[in-house]
Amino acid sequence: MIYDLIVIGGGPAGYVAAGRAGRAGLSVLLVEKRSLGGVCLNEGCIPSKALLNSAKLYEHAVHSEKYGVTVTGAVLDHAKVVARKAKVVKQLVSGVGGQMKANHVTVVNGEAVLDKKTAEGFPVKVGADTYVAARLLIASGSVPVVPPIPGVKEGLEAGYVMTNREILDMTTVPANLCIVGGGIIGLEMASYFNVAGSRVTVVEMLDHIAGPTDAEISAILLKEYQKKGIDFRLGAKVVGVDKGSVSYEKDGKIESVPADVILMSIGRRANTKGLNAEALGIEMDRGAIVTDRHGQTNVAGVWAAGDVNGKSMLAHTAYREAEVCVNNILGRRDVMRYNAIPSVIYTNPEVAGIGETEETAKQKGIDYVCKKLSMRYAGRFVAENEGGDGLCKVLVDKKANRVIGIHMIGNSSSEIIWGASALIETELRIEDIKELVFPHPTVSEIIRETIFEF
Amino acid sequence: MIYDLIVIGGGPAGYVAAGRAGRAGLSVLLVEKRSLGGVCLNEGCIPSKALLNSAKLYEHAVHSEKYGVTVTGAVLDHAKVVARKAKVVKQLVSGVGGQMKANHVTVVNGEAVLDKKTAEGFPVKVGADTYVAARLLIASGSVPVVPPIPGVKEGLEAGYVMTNREILDMTTVPANLCIVGGGIIGLEMASYFNVAGSRVTVVEMLDHIAGPTDAEISAILLKEYQKKGIDFRLGAKVVGVDKGSVSYEKDGKIESVPADVILMSIGRRANTKGLNAEALGIEMDRGAIVTDRHGQTNVAGVWAAGDVNGKSMLAHTAYREAEVCVNNILGRRDVMRYNAIPSVIYTNPEVAGIGETEETAKQKGIDYVCKKLSMRYAGRFVAENEGGDGLCKVLVDKKANRVIGIHMIGNSSSEIIWGASALIETELRIEDIKELVFPHPTVSEIIRETIFEF
Repeated sequence: MIYDLIVIGGGPAGYVAAGRAGRAGLSVLLVEKRSLGGVCLNEGCIPSKALLNSAKLYEHAVHSEKYGVTVTGAVLDHAKVVARKAKVVKQLVSGVGGQMKANHVTVVNGEAVLDKKTAEGFPVKVGADTYVAARLLIASGSVPVVPPIPGVKEGLEAGYVMTNREILDMTTVPANLCIVGGGIIGLEMASYFNVAGSRVTVVEMLDHIAGPTDAEISAILLKEYQKKGIDFRLGAKVVGVDKGSVSYEKDGKIESVPADVILMSIGRRANTKGLNAEALGIEMDRGAIVTDRHGQTNVAGVWAAGDVNGKSMLAHTAYREAEVCVNNILGRRDVMRYNAIPSVIYTNPEVAGIGETEETAKQKGIDYVCKKLSMRYAGRFVAENEGGDGLCKVLVDKKANRVIGIHMIGNSSSEIIWGASALIETELRIEDIKELVFPHPTVSEIIRETIFEF
Repeated sequence: MIYDLIVIGGGPAGYVAAGRAGRAGLSVLLVEKRSLGGVCLNEGCIPSKALLNSAKLYEHAVHSEKYGVTVTGAVLDHAKVVARKAKVVKQLVSGVGGQMKANHVTVVNGEAVLDKKTAEGFPVKVGADTYVAARLLIASGSVPVVPPIPGVKEGLEAGYVMTNREILDMTTVPANLCIVGGGIIGLEMASYFNVAGSRVTVVEMLDHIAGPTDAEISAILLKEYQKKGIDFRLGAKVVGVDKGSVSYEKDGKIESVPADVILMSIGRRANTKGLNAEALGIEMDRGAIVTDRHGQTNVAGVWAAGDVNGKSMLAHTAYREAEVCVNNILGRRDVMRYNAIPSVIYTNPEVAGIGETEETAKQKGIDYVCKKLSMRYAGRFVAENEGGDGLCKVLVDKKANRVIGIHMIGNSSSEIIWGASALIETELRIEDIKELVFPHPTVSEIIRETIFEF
């Protein structure tokens, strides 16, 4: 048979695209070489959240005395945490499988290899079999960047250098953990293992952590982590790794930190190796597949969504990109926008942001006003965070009088930020936002309070 | 001097109105007979959240083993919890005082008594002093309904019958606590004292708990509470209270429950006693001050906001009503709407809802479609709630293709629900909501997932 659509990759972009297309009545084949759910579900977002939840519970137990609750002998059993994480992942992977079945998607396990288009359509080889489809959607995701630093290759082979995949399955807690790269993945693992008992050092090439996060919030976050005992070496370039240590150059000097385990988390790149995209003449840019705002590649009938397009590298962006592709395939005009995509760091404290930061707004020459308030202006935050503080920043485009960015540090920012997506997407004026009723007392009210500063 | 505005009552409506008016340049006097912040801050929303936060921490500690964290000997020290609550309240009350100062509001402590209008304006007596203003804003709040049940008056005097005020200051945990009224206040106190160690019985006249909450969610909540050991007597009418017991009639029979402490939480009514509103001829309806949608009473220049108008009895409604009044006073046309006001129950699990329920939609004859999903469709919920479940329901007006209600049970609904206010207020179509990007993995995604069921 000739499928209406073959989806390559069963991660967030792939399974959402396959599910939506199947539900709309297309015949769909999904090819996944590992496990449904992709990196996000198997070795990324979900497993890290299971770990961080256990860390949060442990931290709560240890620090609950100031809330009138005393606890003796709190112990975090890392092996049990990892075992539970595996259970959660298994359950959710099976849920994705169920969704595929419910939407009549045929799932094939194996590595997809493309070939020249034939009169029948696009052939896709999976092992010994060849499948053909009228359209392709490439959602092959991303892989960790492994830099050509002396010792990294040997360390990965020997097992003491890890990527996100291996570290999430490690059942012991290393005495010394060195994390190379202070982006979101690095910070989430640093937080967990710091609570689990490792001495954690984060080595980061830039002079700040958390990548494109609002600079002021990134600085607060750094201090919070340092208070908890995480060691940071910023502006430090790793020059070599060994069994037992990581060497880096900082201010012209070579220094080193002890490291029983080394996590490489300097970034991710589009995964197109082995795909043979060249056979179709698909345009690429530094290994990523180039797509237009409908998700289409330069080859008619070939679409791409998710990390493989190299644009945002976030699971929820992948979901939306997948939907845009499928909508356009189904003849419903839909366009991908990147101006209201939230970003979350799930550590304690949580960080969440959306839209322009002061830094990006300045870069783009946007005439903006920024107002900010301490989280202590939210009564619930005070009731639930003895001695703690956080920050909420709202950026407004001066001329348009509309919100272009909201950035927060403090629990539960992660669950609050979605509404900011609605504020930005609907282009509500400040006066309109002032008319929204926020429930009292919640931490979410800090957005309302900050809006009233305008 | 003649004030531009005298505000009577320093609760959520009063202090917001005074602050906004003062900030806009009006000369404002605020009269409060007890403590700034009103019932909400001193003996309602905030103190109950401080207590419930301690209960949540204790429950987490006790149940953390399934997340790989073991704890020996968790103890909730009620007296310490109450002491901390007092500290939180004090801090926030002082914050409101600071806001008043910053906005040039004069605060007078005492009970305000109205009088006939004079040529100068509206006179307001506070003790021996009389103040005069061009306009009045009455925000005198509400008081608990104390029903004429035999024994209640004597119990209140003796101290074993309490209202929200007394119970939040009680420093011991009663062995047997009977709560008369299964609305939000009753359920929050039932949850806290159940965790703190009381045997809690809730006696409710209706056949369901949580008042106007979505019926399906109310039923789930009831089961959750019962699993935790709270005893419910529904369809039961209290006929008498004594030191040691509460008697009620159910199915024509008289039964009783042991009760060392009895909390009366059957509702609240507008507080206009002693105000002498009659002197101005202000129109009242069953003790509440009648206002139009601008917050104005039948007397030109006299406004009312918050619980005293008898409409919604929620602090966040009071905020918005106060703003509507002040905007209209300042000549900015503004209208109060009640279609997108969230409601939250802060127990474990949390419940949050906004807009029409299936029950109210049917009553109003709205042609609606309701879709619902288990919280287990949200990966983060699974990662953080071992063995737990929750529900999200979305109601859409069939003809308008717009969301008219969202109702959730499960943590962290309280912090998620504000965004639903934006969805309803902006009248986004379902197709538009599908384009919003929710952060993954969050519990908030359950709204997105449910929307995609349409």
